[in-house]
Amino acid sequence: MDRVAVLGAGSWGTAFAKVLADSGTPTALWARRDTVADEISTSRVNSGYLPGVRLPDNLTATASAEQALDGARAVVLAVPSQTLRENLAAWRPALPPDSTLVSLAKGVELGTLKRMSEVVREVADVPEDRVAVVSGPNLAREIGAEQPTATVIACTDHDRAVELQRACTNPYFRPYTNTDVVGCELGGACKNVIALACGMAAGLGFGDNTMASIITRGLAETARLGAALGADPLTLAGLAGLGDLVATCASPLSRNRTFGERLGRGDTLAQAQEAAHGQVAEGVKSCTSIHALAARVGVDMPITDGVRRVCHDGLDPRVLTAALLGRETKAER
Amino acid sequence: MDRVAVLGAGSWGTAFAKVLADSGTPTALWARRDTVADEISTSRVNSGYLPGVRLPDNLTATASAEQALDGARAVVLAVPSQTLRENLAAWRPALPPDSTLVSLAKGVELGTLKRMSEVVREVADVPEDRVAVVSGPNLAREIGAEQPTATVIACTDHDRAVELQRACTNPYFRPYTNTDVVGCELGGACKNVIALACGMAAGLGFGDNTMASIITRGLAETARLGAALGADPLTLAGLAGLGDLVATCASPLSRNRTFGERLGRGDTLAQAQEAAHGQVAEGVKSCTSIHALAARVGVDMPITDGVRRVCHDGLDPRVLTAALLGRETKAER
Repeated sequence: MDRVAVLGAGSWGTAFAKVLADSGTPTALWARRDTVADEISTSRVNSGYLPGVRLPDNLTATASAEQALDGARAVVLAVPSQTLRENLAAWRPALPPDSTLVSLAKGVELGTLKRMSEVVREVADVPEDRVAVVSGPNLAREIGAEQPTATVIACTDHDRAVELQRACTNPYFRPYTNTDVVGCELGGACKNVIALACGMAAGLGFGDNTMASIITRGLAETARLGAALGADPLTLAGLAGLGDLVATCASPLSRNRTFGERLGRGDTLAQAQEAAHGQVAEGVKSCTSIHALAARVGVDMPITDGVRRVCHDGLDPRVLTAALLGRETKAER
Repeated sequence: MDRVAVLGAGSWGTAFAKVLADSGTPTALWARRDTVADEISTSRVNSGYLPGVRLPDNLTATASAEQALDGARAVVLAVPSQTLRENLAAWRPALPPDSTLVSLAKGVELGTLKRMSEVVREVADVPEDRVAVVSGPNLAREIGAEQPTATVIACTDHDRAVELQRACTNPYFRPYTNTDVVGCELGGACKNVIALACGMAAGLGFGDNTMASIITRGLAETARLGAALGADPLTLAGLAGLGDLVATCASPLSRNRTFGERLGRGDTLAQAQEAAHGQVAEGVKSCTSIHALAARVGVDMPITDGVRRVCHDGLDPRVLTAALLGRETKAER
């Protein structure tokens, strides 16, 4: 591929820009702050978000979105989900015609209850076949360290997915194509909430049996939501569903899991946020929008609802495990 | 339930006997060795297999299988899978009429390629509706510590499953019933092999992205085998499939995972066995029988085959990760 712009120089944006560049694709990485762009340009490192990783020479950095976008065949959107709309509106005049818009953001927009690809279509005013999403078991630091990783690139236009696949295939990164955008996005959004639940259980002192039960039931409720919204259940059983969920829930590198652990140990939301350098984990926001989306289509998501009540209604995290281990016995389904 | 016999006082047999007794079910636990039965009777502890856990007073221990079996309404078989046939043949004359035979063993018998419930039916000469299996995210030490845990009790006779469910429901243990015996057994058998693969990847220095990919692909190949043998795919997406797999692969308590880590670090099978006090992990044997079973029904199981070749053909464990991250790009399915 000629040239790709990656907009957002957080951990995942920076790691994915490195993947593209390591695949032989000239890549321009946009950072909001001059200092970050300058550090990458001069020292080949993004010490704030991907410390210890040397970035390749065919990756350029800039704080000018227009410069990054100029001539790009694909535009990778790597900003937090709740800021995607505002950012994209500002970038819209500079989006190259017919470029593929690729969302790395995972979540459901508060208020509108739209998935990220829907936000992209609406704000950029493009047909759905120009929008792709990337999702899978993709912990940014491990990819930065060039550990072997698989992922899924989903786009309703198979040819665009294949073009992107070629642009980011290298010896440590193996992308699979898929046309089920809805399933991939829901897997990525819901896993942050389930990871919060796993973290809460760990913070309460529970072990791997409990974590495995939460993952299993969490994927089941994600699949129920997916089925109601037209996703293919096999997508959620694959890398973008189960794979992403397991990586996020099992890893001590996961921000959502770490955040949940603090809540499980008794921290308030404010205390956990302070410990996370002021950042709120993605799942804290998306539990509200996913719960509202599920309610709109009549799907029961007890773990997501439990996380929402712990985060936003101040409920004791013990309600979550109590809900999982309710006294009433029944058949598995 | 009147009375249950648990035959086998290893970690899982002892923990499950405690679950039954804690649910108010009088339970007799058979240990092969007098010393183990004596220790449980006099000190209420099985220090060799479930250290630090006090066993309840309504759990009795004996080294006489006849004594344990006398008057039992259910007989729980908690011996290693490859010894089940021989043990059960010896116990057969003492099995109470119409008792439910419950398999905790997980594996596929070498040579015959039979699942454990099939071995039980054949050796005890009972109809399939008298045989049940228990499978789920059930790390014995966590259950011994009374951590909240869910599991699945599968029996083609729903009433027997419910009877067993009542006998082992307590505040920390929540069993669900299911009629899909084949799915539950395959989930339990295959997970040991996948856990070996995860251990190998960890031993080679790979992180959570790789582990999550192996779990995802491993469950997919298990589901393919299940579909060929008549299992319900939803069983493998549930506690006895995904749940058991995640608990086993994620936990440092898992024998199969630990064994695989040694192989990944370069130990030979003999060295890994020596480090495991002479024991070979269950998956080392069942990878051979599961691979043969898959070949018989024409199902491709690349991870299981890779594990088999590492364990028994001396192949480098790197072949496993290479197989996962092959250079050829394609669609996810």
